[in-house]
Amino acid sequence: MNAGELAGLLGDVAAGRLSAAAAIDRLRHFPSESLPYATIDHHRALRQGQPEVVFCEGKTVEQVAGICRRLADVGGSFLGTRATTEQADALRGEHERLVWHPIARVVHLPDATVGAPTGRVLVVSAGTSDLPVAEEAAVVAEAFGHAVDRLHDVGVAGIHRILAARERLDATDVVIVVAGMEGALPSVVGGLVRQPVIAVPTSVGYGASFGGIAALLGMLNSCASGVTVVNIDNGFGAAAAASRILRR
Amino acid sequence: MNAGELAGLLGDVAAGRLSAAAAIDRLRHFPSESLPYATIDHHRALRQGQPEVVFCEGKTVEQVAGICRRLADVGGSFLGTRATTEQADALRGEHERLVWHPIARVVHLPDATVGAPTGRVLVVSAGTSDLPVAEEAAVVAEAFGHAVDRLHDVGVAGIHRILAARERLDATDVVIVVAGMEGALPSVVGGLVRQPVIAVPTSVGYGASFGGIAALLGMLNSCASGVTVVNIDNGFGAAAAASRILRR
Amino acid sequence: MNAGELAGLLGDVAAGRLSAAAAIDRLRHFPSESLPYATIDHHRALRQGQPEVVFCEGKTVEQVAGICRRLADVGGSFLGTRATTEQADALRGEHERLVWHPIARVVHLPDATVGAPTGRVLVVSAGTSDLPVAEEAAVVAEAFGHAVDRLHDVGVAGIHRILAARERLDATDVVIVVAGMEGALPSVVGGLVRQPVIAVPTSVGYGASFGGIAALLGMLNSCASGVTVVNIDNGFGAAAAASRILRR
Amino acid sequence: MNAGELAGLLGDVAAGRLSAAAAIDRLRHFPSESLPYATIDHHRALRQGQPEVVFCEGKTVEQVAGICRRLADVGGSFLGTRATTEQADALRGEHERLVWHPIARVVHLPDATVGAPTGRVLVVSAGTSDLPVAEEAAVVAEAFGHAVDRLHDVGVAGIHRILAARERLDATDVVIVVAGMEGALPSVVGGLVRQPVIAVPTSVGYGASFGGIAALLGMLNSCASGVTVVNIDNGFGAAAAASRILRR
Amino acid sequence: MNAGELAGLLGDVAAGRLSAAAAIDRLRHFPSESLPYATIDHHRALRQGQPEVVFCEGKTVEQVAGICRRLADVGGSFLGTRATTEQADALRGEHERLVWHPIARVVHLPDATVGAPTGRVLVVSAGTSDLPVAEEAAVVAEAFGHAVDRLHDVGVAGIHRILAARERLDATDVVIVVAGMEGALPSVVGGLVRQPVIAVPTSVGYGASFGGIAALLGMLNSCASGVTVVNIDNGFGAAAAASRILRR
Amino acid sequence: MNAGELAGLLGDVAAGRLSAAAAIDRLRHFPSESLPYATIDHHRALRQGQPEVVFCEGKTVEQVAGICRRLADVGGSFLGTRATTEQADALRGEHERLVWHPIARVVHLPDATVGAPTGRVLVVSAGTSDLPVAEEAAVVAEAFGHAVDRLHDVGVAGIHRILAARERLDATDVVIVVAGMEGALPSVVGGLVRQPVIAVPTSVGYGASFGGIAALLGMLNSCASGVTVVNIDNGFGAAAAASRILRR
Amino acid sequence: MNAGELAGLLGDVAAGRLSAAAAIDRLRHFPSESLPYATIDHHRALRQGQPEVVFCEGKTVEQVAGICRRLADVGGSFLGTRATTEQADALRGEHERLVWHPIARVVHLPDATVGAPTGRVLVVSAGTSDLPVAEEAAVVAEAFGHAVDRLHDVGVAGIHRILAARERLDATDVVIVVAGMEGALPSVVGGLVRQPVIAVPTSVGYGASFGGIAALLGMLNSCASGVTVVNIDNGFGAAAAASRILRR
Amino acid sequence: MNAGELAGLLGDVAAGRLSAAAAIDRLRHFPSESLPYATIDHHRALRQGQPEVVFCEGKTVEQVAGICRRLADVGGSFLGTRATTEQADALRGEHERLVWHPIARVVHLPDATVGAPTGRVLVVSAGTSDLPVAEEAAVVAEAFGHAVDRLHDVGVAGIHRILAARERLDATDVVIVVAGMEGALPSVVGGLVRQPVIAVPTSVGYGASFGGIAALLGMLNSCASGVTVVNIDNGFGAAAAASRILRR
Repeated sequence: MNAGELAGLLGDVAAGRLSAAAAIDRLRHFPSESLPYATIDHHRALRQGQPEVVFCEGKTVEQVAGICRRLADVGGSFLGTRATTEQADALRGEHERLVWHPIARVVHLPDATVGAPTGRVLVVSAGTSDLPVAEEAAVVAEAFGHAVDRLHDVGVAGIHRILAARERLDATDVVIVVAGMEGALPSVVGGLVRQPVIAVPTSVGYGASFGGIAALLGMLNSCASGVTVVNIDNGFGAAAAASRILRR
Repeated sequence: MNAGELAGLLGDVAAGRLSAAAAIDRLRHFPSESLPYATIDHHRALRQGQPEVVFCEGKTVEQVAGICRRLADVGGSFLGTRATTEQADALRGEHERLVWHPIARVVHLPDATVGAPTGRVLVVSAGTSDLPVAEEAAVVAEAFGHAVDRLHDVGVAGIHRILAARERLDATDVVIVVAGMEGALPSVVGGLVRQPVIAVPTSVGYGASFGGIAALLGMLNSCASGVTVVNIDNGFGAAAAASRILRR
Repeated sequence: MNAGELAGLLGDVAAGRLSAAAAIDRLRHFPSESLPYATIDHHRALRQGQPEVVFCEGKTVEQVAGICRRLADVGGSFLGTRATTEQADALRGEHERLVWHPIARVVHLPDATVGAPTGRVLVVSAGTSDLPVAEEAAVVAEAFGHAVDRLHDVGVAGIHRILAARERLDATDVVIVVAGMEGALPSVVGGLVRQPVIAVPTSVGYGASFGGIAALLGMLNSCASGVTVVNIDNGFGAAAAASRILRR
Repeated sequence: MNAGELAGLLGDVAAGRLSAAAAIDRLRHFPSESLPYATIDHHRALRQGQPEVVFCEGKTVEQVAGICRRLADVGGSFLGTRATTEQADALRGEHERLVWHPIARVVHLPDATVGAPTGRVLVVSAGTSDLPVAEEAAVVAEAFGHAVDRLHDVGVAGIHRILAARERLDATDVVIVVAGMEGALPSVVGGLVRQPVIAVPTSVGYGASFGGIAALLGMLNSCASGVTVVNIDNGFGAAAAASRILRR
Repeated sequence: MNAGELAGLLGDVAAGRLSAAAAIDRLRHFPSESLPYATIDHHRALRQGQPEVVFCEGKTVEQVAGICRRLADVGGSFLGTRATTEQADALRGEHERLVWHPIARVVHLPDATVGAPTGRVLVVSAGTSDLPVAEEAAVVAEAFGHAVDRLHDVGVAGIHRILAARERLDATDVVIVVAGMEGALPSVVGGLVRQPVIAVPTSVGYGASFGGIAALLGMLNSCASGVTVVNIDNGFGAAAAASRILRR
Repeated sequence: MNAGELAGLLGDVAAGRLSAAAAIDRLRHFPSESLPYATIDHHRALRQGQPEVVFCEGKTVEQVAGICRRLADVGGSFLGTRATTEQADALRGEHERLVWHPIARVVHLPDATVGAPTGRVLVVSAGTSDLPVAEEAAVVAEAFGHAVDRLHDVGVAGIHRILAARERLDATDVVIVVAGMEGALPSVVGGLVRQPVIAVPTSVGYGASFGGIAALLGMLNSCASGVTVVNIDNGFGAAAAASRILRR
Repeated sequence: MNAGELAGLLGDVAAGRLSAAAAIDRLRHFPSESLPYATIDHHRALRQGQPEVVFCEGKTVEQVAGICRRLADVGGSFLGTRATTEQADALRGEHERLVWHPIARVVHLPDATVGAPTGRVLVVSAGTSDLPVAEEAAVVAEAFGHAVDRLHDVGVAGIHRILAARERLDATDVVIVVAGMEGALPSVVGGLVRQPVIAVPTSVGYGASFGGIAALLGMLNSCASGVTVVNIDNGFGAAAAASRILRR
Repeated sequence: MNAGELAGLLGDVAAGRLSAAAAIDRLRHFPSESLPYATIDHHRALRQGQPEVVFCEGKTVEQVAGICRRLADVGGSFLGTRATTEQADALRGEHERLVWHPIARVVHLPDATVGAPTGRVLVVSAGTSDLPVAEEAAVVAEAFGHAVDRLHDVGVAGIHRILAARERLDATDVVIVVAGMEGALPSVVGGLVRQPVIAVPTSVGYGASFGGIAALLGMLNSCASGVTVVNIDNGFGAAAAASRILRR
């Protein structure tokens, strides 16, 4: 509820079109909706230009189904990340048009009408094991309405692989770089391109990778300036950040 | 040296305008220049759209002066971050037009000709003690050619302060949010706006803030989707990331 | 055994009503009772105003059953936290009036006579996945004799949700705020209310949430003054702290 | 600005006593005041029952002086923690009634009229080296209008020292327990009393105390139920928490 | 092989009773024996006064059986810690006199002739969940030939429980104190007794106990002087340390 | 593609034997091959003298099978580490000559023609539980064409065991020392020999071994100069490092 | 105050030799004495067999002087560790017989009458930089009445140095082993001797020694059984532990 | 003292040329020499092919001078690392031929006769601030008798800088790669060359570089196989490791 809407509301009160009590009520009843276990934020789309996304991990099948049902009823679409097969199956039983991306672990009930994609995202990954995170980023970016290009398994130990992809790097609007282990790939990519680079550390590795800490620290300390970082394994967050950039 | 330039070079060889030996030489002699203690990357501007920036911390006055002299000679301008007063004084003695920002610890020798600013950055900070980092971000963004707005000391414990700034939040292209302690401000801002949000944790705090780790973790785990993060106290990095977005 | 009781005991000795040997014996035999695997503290209720609570995690079904049997025999009631379904089933077989809260993982054998609740606790949680911890706090606070209000899924990324609950915040005596991920909600709540705020970090999150460390650090570094913190996932501890406040 | 005030404001608009524009203006101009480096929150006293407190660490003498001047002008009093001697000297030159507590590093400009203290706080410390933190808690609690009792150097290695203080423990409303090293004292105190216990870890110790982490973890894992914890060395926070409890 | 034995060996060489080659051979063939996967140290008993003990965790059933068979053949006895039920079953099939302690997870093939116990160890534990570690210490100390007394579930939150055991504390030669969570019990015990106190942190706890780190740090920072510490959950190590003390 | 090959390529262009467009194409098409989930680096053997090795952990059976099929087709051999039994079974069904080392978890399809081994590696391990890592190092070193000697279970608590092996230490070219727990063995070995010593920390241990961190730190801080370290449990890396030394 | 003394006290009350009020008073007035900043524990000597020791770090010169004055008045002696030169100078001005050990940073006012030493401690250190900690252990052990032998700079990288000292190792009652860096020396010593081994990690080292964490972890994970550990740099604690053993 | 020398010694005993007592004495008096604060290992050169090197940090000027005097007297040369200017000045006053490298902080008293260098080391560094560590490696490698080439400031953000140095990379026997921040350079170099690569993390960086931890973890998790790592800032260790390789 921005200043303009507030002015309108107050104008209605001043004009006697709305009682003070009713105005208080409206101010209180933002478009959020309470389930016993969730407070759904239906107007996030207005505020942020992105739909409410359901983080399915740690929720029961019933909770996920209930939240998605309300989102589908009110807005006609939803997106769910970190979904289990069991959650996806329950949703598929209920929503005919649902799309399930098993590698990315994403469920998507698309809007009935989809426009042309706006902007282009290149998702680059360092190794085959980074695929689930890279795909989460790619699938979510597509669901958010952007064109997506993919470049997999081009880690820095074979530096010619990323160098050979210069044209694809040049042809994108935003680069998402996904890497585990030492997480060096975003530094190299950040030095090669002038576009925004969003780095996603993954928990791929063992021993002193400490579940992605090594990659995370590598990316935060990148010697390439202007590389930004999201949480470990957070492909969704990288896509959301790319979308903030592309929707400007 | 992109594919086009490479094609030109090879075309010259094919046409006999350039010997194979000379071509090898050129391919080897990228526009980097070796000082005894540094390899200066003169064509970063071409590659990344931003000039080579000198990180002054940990370098001697002589090293900083030497590198900046070469940058000024070749490109006519330079930017230095984390400069000490001693380093700034040495540079001011040598470069008449040098601008010194003591709070931000930034030295700047601007281009002789400066164009109109492109795009607008809002730098938001949580507390007065975050000022040096916020100013580093602001001053660097200005040096990179963007318009900058500032909003200081609006931490979440007095939530009305950031809510009262909704119009300024709406009027910007990119938001940089600087916060120490628990680092919660970017989550709140990220929930309020649809633009890109770059979070900068600072080392402000004590005890279990662990020199900025608490703020860093808070930002990486932000429940607001699409918030990206740079290193602790890295105001420069946030400005560089904003610039990558604005120069698209 | 406080100074008054000690004076009484010594008076009995001085008056010849009690032999020195018997007095030594009493001083030594505090009302604690030894099982082979536990030393039950029957007079904690006297000392702290709260019954002995059994932390069931890491104990065998036999140990839990044995301890609860003694507590029921001596005091007529018990409370168990972090109970497994198997432990709860064993206790239900033995204690007819037992109440089992599966989400909160709490077993409760209430006193036969329950008074009116004293004081009011509001349990606020940031997300649906924080529910088990929030419910542990709520159920324990109820078992301790307090009225409990609940407000779920009002994290800071949709700040209007907590702002819309101002009246419920104002109407309570103590606020318990449960949050995972960046743990920012207690800072916002602490800035909004003047009552005691007890923050409970949860292990909800992934990657750099490090099993609740991010939320814990966020809460310890809260910029809202006077917010206190309990251990990660320790809903019970928050309720016990609230009860110390309300029983004053 | 609570619901009642909002109703009043809207009533004024409905009655034509206030134009919509003026109402918008008021809603926007909460009683916060912008200095170039700070956004002062004058109505925190209304919201939280405690005055705005200035955390002096990391601020320049000029910034501290400027903020305190505004607080004194508007509200007639201020409290500053973690002040340096230099900051205190500057404030003493400007505010005649200023009180400077050098061990606690607290500056206090009291209200001209001070009421009788409400409630009683007992500050217990484990060792002599914990004194600065304990005194910060004690001095702030006094400044907030509470009676304060002190019990120093009663760590658990000489357990009779705390046991000998049972009467003083029984006679208080809230206990603040300050300890470094292994931080065990709050567990013992928490087992002895039924009142609220606020634990303050200190950075006192060496080696594996890791600047207070050992004490912090000890307190978070306290086997005494309902002990709450604040940040390392945060005597101020403990006093603020005690004040939230006592002002109910 | 001590200096005396070496002198004897060299004397034999000098006297011609042993050739230089044979002496080299003996010096090389210390009484260690090579299996494909282990180098068994048969003369550790001579060197350290304690038999070779098999740490069974991480070894296959075959490896454990093979090593124990050789120890039984050469020395007639063995002790195994952290044994699984499967490993114990295999050993029981092979060694008739084997004793299996399932709570302590210890297997023991005692010497055919057992002398009277030397010295007395008191094993104190803070909570019921610490039992497996406490029992490992107790059982191993018994196997090493010492008398063992046990005192369970006397954590510091009910301080009278340990105070009530003063006579048992006074009657022992060495105290082993086993505690998880905040690990405060060894500090209290260390302050009460003058005997050696060996502290064993356990991984009992959750959240910020970090698998025993909180208890470990608490014990390392104990304010009671002269308390020593072993690894987390290392009941065996505490018993071995006690045995070094008692065998002097 | 080294400078010589580049000269040849450019010579071909200069001579008209190759068009500029074709040269660009070749420069772009390094001998890497794209599968949907991997970018295989066929000429790593040229660049590094070692074949492409497949890290099987975190890859599906299909991905491992697909990558190995391409490597076998192009180069006639492959090596896979951290293979599961399931992955190994799939590969054995497809490649008749495949060798499966279950303790080392290594699959190997050797070259049809194998030369005599070059250089000698001694793999030393501290305990029986370190065997899988030590065997990974040994098997990989053999697959890389080196002679391998093994010395198991010679940890420093029985120092005579390693001292007794001085001749075998003297007879090797490179020593790989594998140890968990405190990781002290490389320091002792590094002090005894003059050859290169590569230390491999293992995750063997419990409690404060923190999954190999204790051993890793011990090795990084070795007081024996010139000992180098690889990642925790990285037997493969140690063998690869040894091979770099032996192939010089 | 043990059970015997309590029996005597109660007997006095029963016999009318002592009033109940006086008995309460005595029970309350244990022999601890309150200064404004300290609660001195005069009867620790009775309880633990060791005098109250002043940890001087973090105390002002005045506090140290005041506490030591009371200890000298009551008991005729004191021991202070981690003393600064300034503190030592102040104490020397007041106590003529004071001994100041500058390397160990220990001040000692010995008892007027000193008996013959009981038991023998060998202090072994790994490197010259460990000297201050080793000397703290040695000087305190001497002050506690034990004979002390020293063996410096015998780290494991030159293993023959410690092997050459076998006779001195055999001739002691307790071994204190002081080491920084990887902290491996206690493991080797623990494998060589059968006496109690107390390991002291030091903060000597750099980089990944993390201020002594590497050495601490190495010692906690020692593969030599029965080695116990004290805090980093805690030479005093090791001497106190040795004294507990020797005074049995 | 190897097996051959031992055989000789025993032969002398057998032949009556040496008494048993004298032989014991010799076996005990290895060529190490005891100063009050150090045990100098004169025959390390024999054992390891490298002279005893003095780590000067944490030693007093007197200790350094005393140890170096003995090394010069016995062997005619010494090398000292991490020397302060004060230590270097003291040594220069005493040893005329001493060479002082202030950037590398190394003092060197070379052998009177120096042979031709054996083998070639290339020291590569990522940034100008890494120079002190890189120079320590270079100077020590030269002192150990190897030819050294240097390549500074070629970090991965400008990847063409290292690619342009392919010929120098190919021309060396061992590569030492020194890098702070994200520590990615060794991964790139390791992918480019087939020689041994020794990675040295430096403490260059800020914030989440954590004093070199980020670089250390990056290098340990390098995706380039066979890269080995030494301690943070340990240029000396890298040179010693290179020397072990080159002296084979």
